[in-house]
Amino acid sequence: MSSDQLPSWRETPAKGSILDYIAAATDSGSADFVEESERVAVFDNDGTLWTEQPMYAQLAFALDRAAELGHPTSLEKLHAGGMTALTDLVKLTHAGITTDEFDAVCRRWLASARHPRFARPYPAMVYQPMLELLGLLGRSGFSCWIFSGGGTDFMRTWAAEVYGIPAHRVIGSVGETEFRLGAGGPELVKDAAVQVINDGPQKPSSIHRHVGQRPILAAGNTDGDLAMLQWTAASPHRSLQLVVRHTDGEREYAYDRDPILGSGTGQILAAATEAGWTMIDMAADWSTVYPPIR
Amino acid sequence: MSSDQLPSWRETPAKGSILDYIAAATDSGSADFVEESERVAVFDNDGTLWTEQPMYAQLAFALDRAAELGHPTSLEKLHAGGMTALTDLVKLTHAGITTDEFDAVCRRWLASARHPRFARPYPAMVYQPMLELLGLLGRSGFSCWIFSGGGTDFMRTWAAEVYGIPAHRVIGSVGETEFRLGAGGPELVKDAAVQVINDGPQKPSSIHRHVGQRPILAAGNTDGDLAMLQWTAASPHRSLQLVVRHTDGEREYAYDRDPILGSGTGQILAAATEAGWTMIDMAADWSTVYPPIR
Repeated sequence: MSSDQLPSWRETPAKGSILDYIAAATDSGSADFVEESERVAVFDNDGTLWTEQPMYAQLAFALDRAAELGHPTSLEKLHAGGMTALTDLVKLTHAGITTDEFDAVCRRWLASARHPRFARPYPAMVYQPMLELLGLLGRSGFSCWIFSGGGTDFMRTWAAEVYGIPAHRVIGSVGETEFRLGAGGPELVKDAAVQVINDGPQKPSSIHRHVGQRPILAAGNTDGDLAMLQWTAASPHRSLQLVVRHTDGEREYAYDRDPILGSGTGQILAAATEAGWTMIDMAADWSTVYPPIR
Repeated sequence: MSSDQLPSWRETPAKGSILDYIAAATDSGSADFVEESERVAVFDNDGTLWTEQPMYAQLAFALDRAAELGHPTSLEKLHAGGMTALTDLVKLTHAGITTDEFDAVCRRWLASARHPRFARPYPAMVYQPMLELLGLLGRSGFSCWIFSGGGTDFMRTWAAEVYGIPAHRVIGSVGETEFRLGAGGPELVKDAAVQVINDGPQKPSSIHRHVGQRPILAAGNTDGDLAMLQWTAASPHRSLQLVVRHTDGEREYAYDRDPILGSGTGQILAAATEAGWTMIDMAADWSTVYPPIR
């Protein structure tokens, strides 16, 4: 195909680096050719594939859900209450409910909730350039997976459809679930006990567990993604590491070195500089940030 | 295709039930048609897809590995030592080793070890009729997954190739792994702490976590598989449940109602009888048990 595969990417080195890598990995005549069965790509979600400001979408969901359940709280109260307050919120909004019921609750929220600044539905807060990258990778024989700190059950209610990735490739933090023979038949009940917080060094462990292969491409935006990018960089194949930098206060948010939530960026930017990983400067490299609203 | 898709199955009701179900689920004109994206099939491994007698292959591996490491033990000592002895054995043979090293150790063992009665390599102890079923399901648009009590890392060293299933669809019990920047680069070190024992009611939870969809076909052979079959039977689609019965003392082992290891069969046989699930009588239904050795 001669048409532009990444139309929302400006003609900058970031785009060149991505296209060059994909061309090499998929050209059977290239020294960097990788068999299709080994073309595994892993992506962080919050801040890498969609906007994580002014708060994680899942936190906005939890606050709305708590109010709906008659126990309203706020970001301020959460900050003041620390881990206990957060655990209580998770228990209230994510536990004691079957997986089927939780799925329905999430879908209902997603249909009505709007981002406070951009007034878009949250699934429309994904980055158009990254959608194009996921599409190009899929057409190039890559299996794209998401490894996020967000909750698996929450993400799967929208990510599979929006990103065009099957549910089993959307992996996040998970709580215990209990199998029960309920009145309406067998059901899985979500428990408040957290089994895996899928961040930092846990990401390579989760990749090993869920994929069972080492990726050749990884994208992230905070220090919580560093281990995942390091793990991918140690592949025996030529690999590609992408670091999304939030530099665009007008079209998105500018918090490149001063994250107001989530983990910092000091370590990943230092590692990226040292190793020559591909930095994506949102303001400079993307001509469009969000997709048209359907 | 008019040729026999299941040549190692005799023309009995079990075969008829399987072929009838697959035909209905894949015929877009049928009331029982299921979209390809929802054709998820889950299989237990030990005793369902390969022989689990006179002991689990992974236990034979652990005993051989312990001897190789200078700490020989025996089944008798394990029985006498109870859970402590078993935990010690797992720690000795499955922990304190990187995932790459463990993979190599398993492959070495598989290349040389032989089943004590049939003198076959362990990967040749799989059931030929079940290989044919996996193949037929794959050609019929099903995604086949394994949910076993065995260790994920152990199984993936051979199961993916032997069953023709990608590594990410081979799920078992898992221990913690620790991400470490070693002398040779990033590595994952296997820990003795067990994270998930993938048996009984844990199987539906693991299916939810790894697949994110409810299966329409499940096969097992002990009470440890009952929850998985119940979960599948509650699918909104027409579903199929298969129970493998070990009735063939000559060609395999006869322990249908008296398992000498693993969990019992009383509950699953009662449930299968009540619900009319498809029973597979190895002696009666299979014309061949093991594949030719390549």
